[in-house]
Amino acid sequence: MDLRPLLTESEAKILFIVADGLGGIDSGGRGTELEAARTPNLDRLASQGATGLTYPVAPGITPGSGPGHMALFGYDPVEHNIGRGVLTALGIDFDLEPGDVAARGNFCTLDSDGVVTDRRAGRIDSREGARLVRMLKEIRLDDVEVYVEPVKEHRFLLVLRPKTQALGARVDDTDPHRIGTPPREPRAQEEKSQQTARAVSEFVAQAREILAQEEPANMVLLRGFAQLPQLASLRESYGLDGCALAGYPMYRGIARLLGMKVVDCGPDLDSEINALKTAWPHHDFLFLHFKETDSRGEDGDFDGKVAAIEKLDRAIPRMIELQPDVIVVTGDHSTPSALASHSWHPVPVLLNANTCRVDGVVGFGETACAGGGLGHLPAKHLMTLALAHAGHLRKFGA
Amino acid sequence: MDLRPLLTESEAKILFIVADGLGGIDSGGRGTELEAARTPNLDRLASQGATGLTYPVAPGITPGSGPGHMALFGYDPVEHNIGRGVLTALGIDFDLEPGDVAARGNFCTLDSDGVVTDRRAGRIDSREGARLVRMLKEIRLDDVEVYVEPVKEHRFLLVLRPKTQALGARVDDTDPHRIGTPPREPRAQEEKSQQTARAVSEFVAQAREILAQEEPANMVLLRGFAQLPQLASLRESYGLDGCALAGYPMYRGIARLLGMKVVDCGPDLDSEINALKTAWPHHDFLFLHFKETDSRGEDGDFDGKVAAIEKLDRAIPRMIELQPDVIVVTGDHSTPSALASHSWHPVPVLLNANTCRVDGVVGFGETACAGGGLGHLPAKHLMTLALAHAGHLRKFGA
Repeated sequence: MDLRPLLTESEAKILFIVADGLGGIDSGGRGTELEAARTPNLDRLASQGATGLTYPVAPGITPGSGPGHMALFGYDPVEHNIGRGVLTALGIDFDLEPGDVAARGNFCTLDSDGVVTDRRAGRIDSREGARLVRMLKEIRLDDVEVYVEPVKEHRFLLVLRPKTQALGARVDDTDPHRIGTPPREPRAQEEKSQQTARAVSEFVAQAREILAQEEPANMVLLRGFAQLPQLASLRESYGLDGCALAGYPMYRGIARLLGMKVVDCGPDLDSEINALKTAWPHHDFLFLHFKETDSRGEDGDFDGKVAAIEKLDRAIPRMIELQPDVIVVTGDHSTPSALASHSWHPVPVLLNANTCRVDGVVGFGETACAGGGLGHLPAKHLMTLALAHAGHLRKFGA
Repeated sequence: MDLRPLLTESEAKILFIVADGLGGIDSGGRGTELEAARTPNLDRLASQGATGLTYPVAPGITPGSGPGHMALFGYDPVEHNIGRGVLTALGIDFDLEPGDVAARGNFCTLDSDGVVTDRRAGRIDSREGARLVRMLKEIRLDDVEVYVEPVKEHRFLLVLRPKTQALGARVDDTDPHRIGTPPREPRAQEEKSQQTARAVSEFVAQAREILAQEEPANMVLLRGFAQLPQLASLRESYGLDGCALAGYPMYRGIARLLGMKVVDCGPDLDSEINALKTAWPHHDFLFLHFKETDSRGEDGDFDGKVAAIEKLDRAIPRMIELQPDVIVVTGDHSTPSALASHSWHPVPVLLNANTCRVDGVVGFGETACAGGGLGHLPAKHLMTLALAHAGHLRKFGA
């Protein structure tokens, strides 16, 4: 619902601590990673607060990082699904401008008949990827500026920037999403995207020529053509002056899209907390992003994820001493190490504030949170709950 | 949400075991029927899986069998409400064709002033109902074929099949839904249904003449005019090749509407399980319907319902030995024997799969499920959850 008519002044400060991929599942009888971890500080926050489980998108849906974070910031993640091209640009700190069309690229392998035999060219390493990107940087197109940037391994970013005429982004993927078939034509889905499709077509033709003698990566596949979305900022939506402490580019990028101040800091928790302390007096919504929980989950490393959670727990007192009025600790999705990937399982959350209804849950873990006082709720409601506990929202109706 | 963009190949098989009217309420301090029953096999599935409570339509809404099953198959039961006439046809295995208009009929009693004094003609028995239906089969109409079929007691099915011009189904009930007033005119709600209304009017006039000397059933009341809905099949919606093992016609009919293969089998659990074993290799979504729990609930027979649940429990090992990747056990609604009818109480559900987050619930019962890891959720999400646990869904967003 539109909260703007309900917004009211408050000095209260809200701290969102987002442990990426926090949720897990049991494997080996030790409970989830969060349950197996020794977390006295998180347990104390939970026992003096309210807990629950969230679904970032919907029950059974596995969220990408984009939807996961959009939901945490109170934006419906289906309505505001940020395109893959844009997220790729955000992920490498590329300074995307309004009107730019961004796409995610893969180096791939074609056989002599022009059929895709490997969509990732054997997952060539990042060094090789960067070398090929340097070759593609030679490509010039009429009326459109071209940017090609390496991402990781076989991945790269393509950005088309209009010189004269505006570009649409509704262009079909050239990636056929399966092997045994040639790359697809970049067909425009609307009149406004015709010029984009022509430019993409020309880019692909030149890339094919440039890469013809390379091996195993002799072609490119493009997908997720997208432009910067029009999003109301946190200030417009909630009257909040937001600030992001996030070491990884993609999360910084999403925060920037929502008008948050993005502080330069390293990717490690200590750097982020130091930056948090510096930023603290100047903002009323602070978002700290902790990546390691997701990384260890993606690695399939149960003990590593447990250790990451314990590291976060040890850092909690340094954040509490800033005396946030509302603390939310949660994740943007689950990443069970047993699955070594994002998953659909609902995400544990704790909310701690003086105005909480304490719910009798005494430890921070998935099983305990399933019976918590916040219930099982769409993650997009967390922001409303935080605003309410911070005294930022008036009564609705008389 | 539309799952089609997220579908991905998986070999995993999903088994839905639907105990009709499963949910109950306590009466006499023994807990619900499910809680009073000895169910070691269901308890084991629950303790190694995830549990919750579902509401098929919405909190407080008592579902009919149609909405209850549509929700289980992931279709919003309000958006896709199958008309009563169609469900009546499905319930007696009548081979309804697209374009047919079906209605549910009651034999009723009129007094000498033409006022309805009993909407069910004293609930005449099925034999008497069938005799009267045979009389109505004499009715002929211009431009429309007429089918009249007995259902049970005072109930019958009317089907109008167009010969030339298409028929609409938006016609008011002739059933006034109360006594002390004459039957209503079958008024068309739109131009396209004018011919239907005229045909119904002529049918009713002839029926009144034919039945004039009968007692107590001397007239008919019609309601729920409807046509076969346009529904995406399970294959279109989820890429699933579905198969229904259901002894009762209505459930077979609903399954057929959704493009499932419907196997011929008797109405008893043993026949259904034998058919399940035969069908198993050829499908990836298998729906087994168990009717007795609802029947005993409708009878107001607590012990009978307990015995039905125990019978289902004893059959569980024979289904597990097929090694389904995802097992869902639930009901389409609650039928507490204390109320002897369908009810609005949420329905216990267990989901068992290797990819489950086990939730600490150790027995399958309503009270335990209320604290389960699936939470309290609309039943239409169960299909998404089953697909997720079966590896049929890709990540949403990047």
